[in-house]
Amino acid sequence: VNPQIESAPASCPLAQRFEQVRAQSLRLAEPLSAEDCQAQSMPDASPVKWHLAHVTWFFETFVLEVFEPQFKPHNPAFRVLFNSYYNAVGNKHPRAQRGLLTRPSLVEVLDWRQAVDARVLHLLATPPSQANVSQKMSQIADLIELGLQHEQQHQELLLTDVKHLLFCNGLRPVYRKSWPLAQVAPVALRWLEFAGGVVQIGQDLADHTSPGKRFAFDNETPRHLQHLRPYALANRLVTHGEWLEFMQDGAYSDARWWLSAGWDWVNTHHVDAPLYWTQHTAGDASADWHSFSLHGEAPIDPHTPITHISYFEADAFARWKAATDPLCRGARLPTEFEWEAAAAPQEAALRSAGNFIESNALHPMPVARTPRDAADGQTSPLLQALGDVWEWTSSSYQAYPGFAPWAGAVGEYNGKFMVNQYVLRGGSCATPRDHIRASYRNFFPTDTRWQFSGLRLARSA
Amino acid sequence: VNPQIESAPASCPLAQRFEQVRAQSLRLAEPLSAEDCQAQSMPDASPVKWHLAHVTWFFETFVLEVFEPQFKPHNPAFRVLFNSYYNAVGNKHPRAQRGLLTRPSLVEVLDWRQAVDARVLHLLATPPSQANVSQKMSQIADLIELGLQHEQQHQELLLTDVKHLLFCNGLRPVYRKSWPLAQVAPVALRWLEFAGGVVQIGQDLADHTSPGKRFAFDNETPRHLQHLRPYALANRLVTHGEWLEFMQDGAYSDARWWLSAGWDWVNTHHVDAPLYWTQHTAGDASADWHSFSLHGEAPIDPHTPITHISYFEADAFARWKAATDPLCRGARLPTEFEWEAAAAPQEAALRSAGNFIESNALHPMPVARTPRDAADGQTSPLLQALGDVWEWTSSSYQAYPGFAPWAGAVGEYNGKFMVNQYVLRGGSCATPRDHIRASYRNFFPTDTRWQFSGLRLARSA
Amino acid sequence: VNPQIESAPASCPLAQRFEQVRAQSLRLAEPLSAEDCQAQSMPDASPVKWHLAHVTWFFETFVLEVFEPQFKPHNPAFRVLFNSYYNAVGNKHPRAQRGLLTRPSLVEVLDWRQAVDARVLHLLATPPSQANVSQKMSQIADLIELGLQHEQQHQELLLTDVKHLLFCNGLRPVYRKSWPLAQVAPVALRWLEFAGGVVQIGQDLADHTSPGKRFAFDNETPRHLQHLRPYALANRLVTHGEWLEFMQDGAYSDARWWLSAGWDWVNTHHVDAPLYWTQHTAGDASADWHSFSLHGEAPIDPHTPITHISYFEADAFARWKAATDPLCRGARLPTEFEWEAAAAPQEAALRSAGNFIESNALHPMPVARTPRDAADGQTSPLLQALGDVWEWTSSSYQAYPGFAPWAGAVGEYNGKFMVNQYVLRGGSCATPRDHIRASYRNFFPTDTRWQFSGLRLARSA
Amino acid sequence: VNPQIESAPASCPLAQRFEQVRAQSLRLAEPLSAEDCQAQSMPDASPVKWHLAHVTWFFETFVLEVFEPQFKPHNPAFRVLFNSYYNAVGNKHPRAQRGLLTRPSLVEVLDWRQAVDARVLHLLATPPSQANVSQKMSQIADLIELGLQHEQQHQELLLTDVKHLLFCNGLRPVYRKSWPLAQVAPVALRWLEFAGGVVQIGQDLADHTSPGKRFAFDNETPRHLQHLRPYALANRLVTHGEWLEFMQDGAYSDARWWLSAGWDWVNTHHVDAPLYWTQHTAGDASADWHSFSLHGEAPIDPHTPITHISYFEADAFARWKAATDPLCRGARLPTEFEWEAAAAPQEAALRSAGNFIESNALHPMPVARTPRDAADGQTSPLLQALGDVWEWTSSSYQAYPGFAPWAGAVGEYNGKFMVNQYVLRGGSCATPRDHIRASYRNFFPTDTRWQFSGLRLARSA
Repeated sequence: VNPQIESAPASCPLAQRFEQVRAQSLRLAEPLSAEDCQAQSMPDASPVKWHLAHVTWFFETFVLEVFEPQFKPHNPAFRVLFNSYYNAVGNKHPRAQRGLLTRPSLVEVLDWRQAVDARVLHLLATPPSQANVSQKMSQIADLIELGLQHEQQHQELLLTDVKHLLFCNGLRPVYRKSWPLAQVAPVALRWLEFAGGVVQIGQDLADHTSPGKRFAFDNETPRHLQHLRPYALANRLVTHGEWLEFMQDGAYSDARWWLSAGWDWVNTHHVDAPLYWTQHTAGDASADWHSFSLHGEAPIDPHTPITHISYFEADAFARWKAATDPLCRGARLPTEFEWEAAAAPQEAALRSAGNFIESNALHPMPVARTPRDAADGQTSPLLQALGDVWEWTSSSYQAYPGFAPWAGAVGEYNGKFMVNQYVLRGGSCATPRDHIRASYRNFFPTDTRWQFSGLRLARSA
Repeated sequence: VNPQIESAPASCPLAQRFEQVRAQSLRLAEPLSAEDCQAQSMPDASPVKWHLAHVTWFFETFVLEVFEPQFKPHNPAFRVLFNSYYNAVGNKHPRAQRGLLTRPSLVEVLDWRQAVDARVLHLLATPPSQANVSQKMSQIADLIELGLQHEQQHQELLLTDVKHLLFCNGLRPVYRKSWPLAQVAPVALRWLEFAGGVVQIGQDLADHTSPGKRFAFDNETPRHLQHLRPYALANRLVTHGEWLEFMQDGAYSDARWWLSAGWDWVNTHHVDAPLYWTQHTAGDASADWHSFSLHGEAPIDPHTPITHISYFEADAFARWKAATDPLCRGARLPTEFEWEAAAAPQEAALRSAGNFIESNALHPMPVARTPRDAADGQTSPLLQALGDVWEWTSSSYQAYPGFAPWAGAVGEYNGKFMVNQYVLRGGSCATPRDHIRASYRNFFPTDTRWQFSGLRLARSA
Repeated sequence: VNPQIESAPASCPLAQRFEQVRAQSLRLAEPLSAEDCQAQSMPDASPVKWHLAHVTWFFETFVLEVFEPQFKPHNPAFRVLFNSYYNAVGNKHPRAQRGLLTRPSLVEVLDWRQAVDARVLHLLATPPSQANVSQKMSQIADLIELGLQHEQQHQELLLTDVKHLLFCNGLRPVYRKSWPLAQVAPVALRWLEFAGGVVQIGQDLADHTSPGKRFAFDNETPRHLQHLRPYALANRLVTHGEWLEFMQDGAYSDARWWLSAGWDWVNTHHVDAPLYWTQHTAGDASADWHSFSLHGEAPIDPHTPITHISYFEADAFARWKAATDPLCRGARLPTEFEWEAAAAPQEAALRSAGNFIESNALHPMPVARTPRDAADGQTSPLLQALGDVWEWTSSSYQAYPGFAPWAGAVGEYNGKFMVNQYVLRGGSCATPRDHIRASYRNFFPTDTRWQFSGLRLARSA
Repeated sequence: VNPQIESAPASCPLAQRFEQVRAQSLRLAEPLSAEDCQAQSMPDASPVKWHLAHVTWFFETFVLEVFEPQFKPHNPAFRVLFNSYYNAVGNKHPRAQRGLLTRPSLVEVLDWRQAVDARVLHLLATPPSQANVSQKMSQIADLIELGLQHEQQHQELLLTDVKHLLFCNGLRPVYRKSWPLAQVAPVALRWLEFAGGVVQIGQDLADHTSPGKRFAFDNETPRHLQHLRPYALANRLVTHGEWLEFMQDGAYSDARWWLSAGWDWVNTHHVDAPLYWTQHTAGDASADWHSFSLHGEAPIDPHTPITHISYFEADAFARWKAATDPLCRGARLPTEFEWEAAAAPQEAALRSAGNFIESNALHPMPVARTPRDAADGQTSPLLQALGDVWEWTSSSYQAYPGFAPWAGAVGEYNGKFMVNQYVLRGGSCATPRDHIRASYRNFFPTDTRWQFSGLRLARSA
C-alpha cells in the first residue's frame, strides 16, 4: 500500500478495516505475473486482474459516484468493462470474454485501485458539510462495509479461479509452495444429536453498522422460525479416505446412488473422481490418485476433508453411505436450517478454531484442534463447521419468509439468483476468517466443483 | 373395452376402477390416428402410442411379473422399449427416440393392453391359494392402485404432448372441436388472509388401501409441521387479460422483473409471449394475439386463466405486479406450504367445483361457480384452486423431513427427481378429478411450458 | 394404381414411363405401415410419407400450376408442407420436423398422388389449343422428365431413410425378408491402366427430350475438357473383408491414416466401424461383427462390397492400403474425371450387369457377372462400376466450367449445393437402373454414411 | 536481436535470412504488452506468445533435435505445449486453451527464442565432421528454409489474431496508430481477357535450395497441366464501396444470392456485414458504417478493397453482381487455375507493386501504382493480384495430380488439411513480400473471416 495515501485515523476503525481488506487482495495477487492475472480458464471464472478491477468498480460506482462532490470517474470506459451483473448500472462486457481485456493493463488497474483507495479514505476523513451529515455518513459506512464484504468474496474467488487456471496448464505450476503439511491421526466419525423443534434462523433486518451490530447480507434476513424434527450431524467432515472407498466400491458407475439429473451429469461428462484428481498410473479406481492444490500436485492425504465435489456427488455419497455402512443408516445431506441451528450456538469457538485463508494452507486440513470459544473457554464437539470446506446442504437457495432485497442497484446482489442453486454453509480454507458466520449462505448450481466444496453427513433421529 | 374380458365382480371396486381408468386412456386416444399416436414432438414429450404401452408395461412388470404364477411376458422386447426410467428394471430405449418405434404398431400395443387387462383382472378375481393370501392381495392392490395413479398422470401427459405435437404442424390441426366456450364476466381479484403459524403438511405414511385411506405418492409423506408467517392468497388465478397488460408494459424486455437465470432464458430463446401464443398481424405486443388449444386456434379470451408459462414468467409477473399495481404491493408466488394450508380445509368443495379432464373443456375456464362442499354445503372463497391450471409455487421440489422412498424399483418413482425442479399444485383441466388432492405435488424444471401451468399471487401479511 | 385413371396412350412413351415410375414409389412403400411412413429418424432423413408427398408436390407445382388451365391446388397448405428447399417457391416446413406432420394422413397423401397422376396424364393426353403448342408440349415433357428423375432420386432416399429408421429400433425390424444370398468366390484385386490425356467430361447442353437424347441434370453440363495424367483403377470395389483387415490393424485409432478433419470426426463421434455394424460379443475389433441390412441383421459377408462409410473413412482406407499393401503402393481415391473417363466407354455393359433396385437385393453384392455390352457383346474388365455402391471420389462438388443452372425455381435443384460436398459416382443397389449413367454426379458431405456409399481404389501410373 | 549471438557469416545468405525473419517476428510483437501476448480470442486464433514459441519449437524439433550432436531440449515440457498439429511428434496442448498457458512467461519464451537462434546459427556455421556433409547441410538448409516460411505464415496469423483480440475489447485499442491514409481516386472495373487452353500450373518437385530454385510448399507440386476455357478477370479487387451497394440492395436478406449452406450460415449467425464492421448509429443498412483496423476504428473508405469476408459472402456478391450489373453479366469467382495462369507471367511486377506487410499499412489500399516489372520495365494491367487481400477462388483445396506429401512429420504440414477448405490466392497486406508467389495456395473453410480475405470477379468468355 502506497505510503502517500492519507492514513486511516485511529478514530476510524472502518478506514483501518478498509485498508486491511484492500491490502489483502494485493497480497493474494503477489505470487502472480501480469500474464497469470490476464487469463480466464472458463466462463464461470474470472481473471485475477478482473477481480482486482471489479471490486474497485464497486467502490467507485456505489460509494464515490453517489457521495463524492464533483465526482469524476477515473476512466469512464471501466464502468462497462468491470460491471459484473448489475443491470441497473448499465451495459457490461460479456462474462465469458473477460480474459480478452488485455487493456487496461494490470499496472493501470493497480493505479486505479490506489486512486480509488485514496478517494474513499478522503471521503471517510472529511465529513460532508451539509445537513443530515450523520445519516449520510451512516449510508457511506454501510456501503463501504458492503464493498469490503464483496471484496472478501472475490478474494476467495480469486484463489479458486487461479487454481482452475493453473490446473489447465500441463506444467501444473504452483501458486505458492508450502506443501507438504504434516499428517494427522484420524478422528472417528461420531453422531451429534440435536433436538430440533421451532428454531430461529437468519439475521434481523437491523442497521449493520450500529455499535454491536454485525454485517449480514440481505439473503440472511429476516430472522424467522423453522420447525425441525430431531436430527443428528456428523462430528466432522467426510474425508478423502472415505471418498476413495466410495470410488473403490464403483459408485461412479452405479445408478443406484445418483439423482436422475446427477446420473445424466456423471455420464455426459464422464466423471469418475472429484475435480483436480488425476491418476499417474492408469488402472483400478483406487490406486495412485493425486490431487492438485495451490501448492502443486501431491498424493491424496486420506485424512483431509474431501473437496471440489458437486452437489450431485455429495448427495450420491450420502446415499451410498446410508446403504452400505451400518453406522450411517439414514445418512443424508443436512438442510441449511439443521446446519445453522447446530452451528450458531458455537459460532465463536468454531471461528477461532477454523482453517481459513489466514492459515495460508489454502487446502482443507485434517482435524487438529477442538474448537474452543475464546470468550468462555467452552469446547464444541462439532468439528470443522467453519472453515476448511463449504458444506453442501439439501436446501435449494430460496428467499426467507418476508425477504426483501436491498433498495437500489445493490439489491441485485443476491435475490436475482434465488433459483436452481443450492446452499452451502460454513466457509472454507479460502474464506477470510472475519467474513464468515453461522447464518452465511453461499450458493452454487448442482454441478459446480471448482469451489472448495465438501460435505458433512446428517440423519433424522 | 372388449366384452370378452372377464367383467369385474361387483364385489371388487378396485377391479371396477381398473376398468374405468384403463378405458379412459383409450377414450383419450380415440380422436387420433395411428400416425398421430406415432410422433414425438420433442424429447420431453412422448408419443401417444408410447404412453399407452408404457402404462401397460408398468402393470406387466410390477404386478404380473411379481404375482402371476408361471408369468411369461407378452413380448420380452417390450420390457426395454417401454421402460421409462427405472434403472433397477434394466435397459431402456433412448427417451428422445421414442417416436422412432414404428414397431410394434398401435394395433399390437392395443392388443397388449387388452391381454394385460385380462390378466390383471384374472389376478384380482382369483386369490392365490398359498399362505399369507391377504398380505399378498393387499400388496397387489397397492401396486394396482399405484399403476392406476401412474396411468392417470400419463393421461394428462398424453393430452399435453398431443397439444404440442399438433401445434408443430402449420395446419394447426384440432384434437377435438368443441370451442368456443361462452364468455363469462370477470371476477375481481381479492386477497384472502391466512393466519399461518405451525401447520400440518402432507400425508401420513399409512397403508393407502385400508378402508377410508386415500392414496398418496411417497413424495407427499410424511405428514409434518411447517411454521408459516401470516400471508394472503389471491382469490382467483391470474388471467390472460392480466398477462396482456404485462406484455403491453414491455415486461419481456425489462430486466428488472426477471431472475438472472430467467433473463438469460428469455434472451436465449427470444421469448416474448406464453407458449402457443401467435400474432396473426405482426405489430405491437398487445395486438391480435391468438392462442392454440386442443380445440384449435382462437383469439385469446381475457377472462380465462393464463397457462403455458414457465416458472421464470410466473415469477416475473409477480414482481411486475408487486411494483406496478398498488393493490398488489408485495405480491409474489406462494410457497407450496402456504398453498396447501389454504386449500386443504376446502378440498372437497374445490374438487367438486373444479374444471377437470371430465369437463372436456381441456382448457382453463373463467370463474363460473363458487366452490361448494357437497357434504356440508359450505362455500369457499378460494376459486379455481383445484383444476384449471397447475399453480407454480416458489418451493423447490425437495424431500419432506423424514421422507423415505418406497422400497424396490417403484422407489425410483419420485425421489430420484428431487433436484432443480419446482413444485406446482392443484391439478389442471387435463387432470382426472379423482386423481388430485390438496397435498399433491407436481414438479417441473423452471423453463417448462408445455404443461397447463399458471399462477396465483400471494403476499406476506 | 387406380384403374379409373385414364390410361397412357400407346403413342405416348412419356405417359407410360410416368405411370411406371409413379407406381414404383408405391411399391417401395408397400411393406410399410402408416406408422413406418410417419417417422423421421434424423434431420438428414425424411419420412416415407413425406417423400411420397414431396415428389407429388413437384409435379403439382412445376407442371400443373404452370400449364394446367384453371389450375387449382389439391390443397393449398400442401405447398408449404412439402416444399423441400426451393426458396423461390415460398415458405417451407422445417426440415427436422417433417416427422411431426401426422396430418395429412398417408391415405390423404395417396389420394393426392392419385389425383395429381390423373391430372398430369390428362395434360399429356390433351394438347393445349393455343399457339406454340409444340413448344409448350416440349416444356411440359422436359419438366415431367425432370420430375420423374427427381422421383427416382427420392426412391433411393426412401430406402436409405427407412433403413436408418428401422435400425434405430432395438427390435431391428426387417423391411423385406429375402436374405441370405448365396456366397460367391472372391475376385482378386487387379489394376486397370488408363492413358489419361485430354478427355471429354459431362454432357452437352442439349434438349434432353429430343429423339435419341438422354436426360441429364444441369450439374453434368456442359461437356468440357479435362487433362488427366496416366492412372489406374482397381477392377472391383473394396470389400467387407478388406475393411475388417483395416479394423484389425487398428486403423480407427491411428492418426496416420486420417485427414485432420477426419481424425476429429472419428474421435468426436467415437467411430470404430462403418454405420450399421454391431458386435454381438464385445471384444477385439475383428470378431463377431454383424451388419444391418433391409433384410435384417446378419454376420458380415467378406466378399460383398463395403458400404455405409464416410468420405473420411474411404480416404483413410486408401492411405492405409497404400502404406501397408505392396500391391497397392500409391493407392488413393479416384477423381470424378478419372472415374468417368474409365466408365463412360463401357456404360451400356456396366448398366446391364449392375446390381440395382430392380434386383431386390437392396444390398451390394459380390462380383458375379462380367459386364457385357448387350449391343456388341463386348465384355468390360471394370466390375461393379454402375450399381452396388456409390463410389466416393476425391473431387469436391463444383460447377463445371461454363455451368449455368436451369432457369426458374428448378435452377435451385443443384447449383445451390455446390460447396463443402464431395462427388460420388456410379449409383447403388438402391438406384433405379434407368436412372444412372456414367456422367451422373451424386454429392454428400464428408461425414455422410447412411447412403449406400463405398469405394474403389485408384492410383497414378 | 542480441549482439552476443554469433553473427551470420557474410558467406551464408541463409544465416542472414534466418536472422532477418526471426527479428521481424519480434518487431511485430513490439507494440504489445505481455498481457496482449497472452490472450486468445477464439479457438481459431492463437496468442502472440504462442506464435513466438511455436515457430521456435519448429526449429528445435525439426532442425536441432535431428542434426545437433548431443541435442538437449531447452525445456522438455515445451515440446507438448507448443506442438500445433503434428501427431507424429506426440501429444499437444488443446488448441482452444492456448490462452491459458500463462507459464512459461513471455520473457521465458523470448529467452528460448534467443537460445535456439544461437544454436541454429552455430549449426550453420559449423559443418558436421562426418561423411556426407554436403547432403546433411542441404537437408539442414531445406528444413531451415521451411521453418522460415512457416514463421512468415505465423507472422501474418500473429497480426490477424491480434486484430481479432483487440476488436473484442470495447475500448477498441489500437495495435499501431498510422491511420488515416490518403484517399485515392477510384479505378474503373475493366475485364481482362485470357485465352485459356492447356496451361501449366504449380511448381516442379525440385530441390528448392539449389541455386536459382525458389522455395515452394508441397501443396504447390507437382507442376501439371490444366485445361481452361477462355475467361476474363476483373482488373482490380472488389471495393468497400461496391460492398456497400450490395448491402444497400438488401443482399444479406435475399436467399437468391446465396449457396444453401451460405444462407444457413447468414441466418444462424445473423450476419449482415463483413467482420469488423460496426454501425455507430443504428439505422438503414447503408449508413454510418465504420470498420476496425489495426490502426483503430474509422469510417469505411469506399475505394479500399473489401476484406474480412467469408467464401459464402464472396460467392453471393458475385451472383448478385452477375444478376444486377449489365457490365458484369456472368460474373463469378475465378478458379485457382484461372487466377494462377493470369498472374504467373506478371509475378515479378505484381510483387514489386504490391501492398505487403513491409508497407506498414496493414490494411488493403486503393489502387495507386500500376505494377511494373523491375527487371524489364513491363507494366501489368492486372492490379492488386499480389498483396492487399487474399482472393477467394471457387476451387476447393485438393491435391494436385501426382501430389505426394514431404516425408516425415513435416509431411503433416499441408496434405492432412485437403478437405472442406477453399483456396485463396495472392497474399495480403499482412504477408511478407518475399513469402508470396503466383503458385502459392492458402486455404480456409468457407465461413472464415478473420483473415485479410477479399475477392476479384471472373467470368467465362
